[in-house]
Amino acid sequence: MSTPAWQATVLTLFPEMFPGPLGASLAGKSLKDGRWALKTLDIRQFARDRHRTVDDVPLGGGIGMVLKPDVVAAALDHVADAPGPRIYLTPRGRVLDQPMVHDLANGQGAVFLCGRYEGVDQRVIDAFDMQEVSLGDFILSGGEMAALTVMDAVVRLLPGVIGREASHQEESFETGLLEPSLYTHPRSWNGIEAPEILASGHHRKIAEWRQAEAERETRERRPDLWDRYLLRQESDPDNT
Amino acid sequence: MSTPAWQATVLTLFPEMFPGPLGASLAGKSLKDGRWALKTLDIRQFARDRHRTVDDVPLGGGIGMVLKPDVVAAALDHVADAPGPRIYLTPRGRVLDQPMVHDLANGQGAVFLCGRYEGVDQRVIDAFDMQEVSLGDFILSGGEMAALTVMDAVVRLLPGVIGREASHQEESFETGLLEPSLYTHPRSWNGIEAPEILASGHHRKIAEWRQAEAERETRERRPDLWDRYLLRQESDPDNT
Repeated sequence: MSTPAWQATVLTLFPEMFPGPLGASLAGKSLKDGRWALKTLDIRQFARDRHRTVDDVPLGGGIGMVLKPDVVAAALDHVADAPGPRIYLTPRGRVLDQPMVHDLANGQGAVFLCGRYEGVDQRVIDAFDMQEVSLGDFILSGGEMAALTVMDAVVRLLPGVIGREASHQEESFETGLLEPSLYTHPRSWNGIEAPEILASGHHRKIAEWRQAEAERETRERRPDLWDRYLLRQESDPDNT
Repeated sequence: MSTPAWQATVLTLFPEMFPGPLGASLAGKSLKDGRWALKTLDIRQFARDRHRTVDDVPLGGGIGMVLKPDVVAAALDHVADAPGPRIYLTPRGRVLDQPMVHDLANGQGAVFLCGRYEGVDQRVIDAFDMQEVSLGDFILSGGEMAALTVMDAVVRLLPGVIGREASHQEESFETGLLEPSLYTHPRSWNGIEAPEILASGHHRKIAEWRQAEAERETRERRPDLWDRYLLRQESDPDNT
């Protein structure tokens, strides 16, 4: 490979969760091919006492445990040379979207800190100027699944991972609209016909139909996306 | 176990991705303990020709491949007795949130259809009245990682999976606010003091400080959540 592989570095208490599902299919093949690389580091190895303690009770009381700042900082220091932003996966973070995924894919890599228990002492997050990133408004058992999900989204954008059979351009969130419904053979399945226009061979009319469908479905399914799409059209009337 | 285990059924072209990360930690232990069950089914076994074809070109043209309705329908028919809603993971779906996770956890299980390539023929989604669910506004290489993520969120809510050391009530999205920052020992780390109030031992003042922090951070980090929170407060002034 002429360009260095995209380098994922994961700090976790469960290194056995990686590469997990990313070891199969396109992500797995491109990992074996060296298009990206994955290094996991067990946070527990940075515990300083003989009990290998990584967490402690929350200051001020409350249930649950908090990952200790000294232990997490030692882990982050150990990967100081790893490329890319330091990302802490947390429901308090900025919600992941496709532009963030593109930014990550365009960089050299990322360091993912996976929280467990209640979370990580905020002082270490702030001291390392970490980017706090959330998958969405739901709670996971830890940051590991979120890190895997972010990596899955990033890896498919890396050069050479997906061949020309797949499109990045027309996909949801690239155009600001949801993709229109998909249909394939047979044209009549179980007594249900696919939309007739798709068999017409009339490329311009098919494109117009798909655009209208994408707009209708975005309006109905995701009024929030639709409003943003309209705002963008207004501010840039040449943008189609 | 007196109650039947929560039953996850996954239709996928990559059964080797499961249980993946859900085989470790709390999810893995509760899977072994029978608090939930996981059945994966390879969609390819429902292909009807000797080439085991599962996909075909999109009607109307375009790049990418679409999962065939007859093959997917045969897979769904095969698990007709599996409990729970039929969920198709797609970026066109309703965006996952914690109330949806609770609804799933309160049910008997779920059937997850994992798309690959460009997606699944819409006729089979409609014919089986599937719930279309999205993790968020980003694109994954397939539905598998999304299914794993939904299961991770659900499983931690099942009875007995998380002990009393963890709180479901005070977590982000249960109160409508982000959680406040967390701190643990040592009180002074790397020259940075944890907020002094947390060492005061004054439980009421600590609770007030945490509420104020949660409100401030939600306002700053997630104006969308903050607006919803205010609306809810207005419509129910007794709701604290």
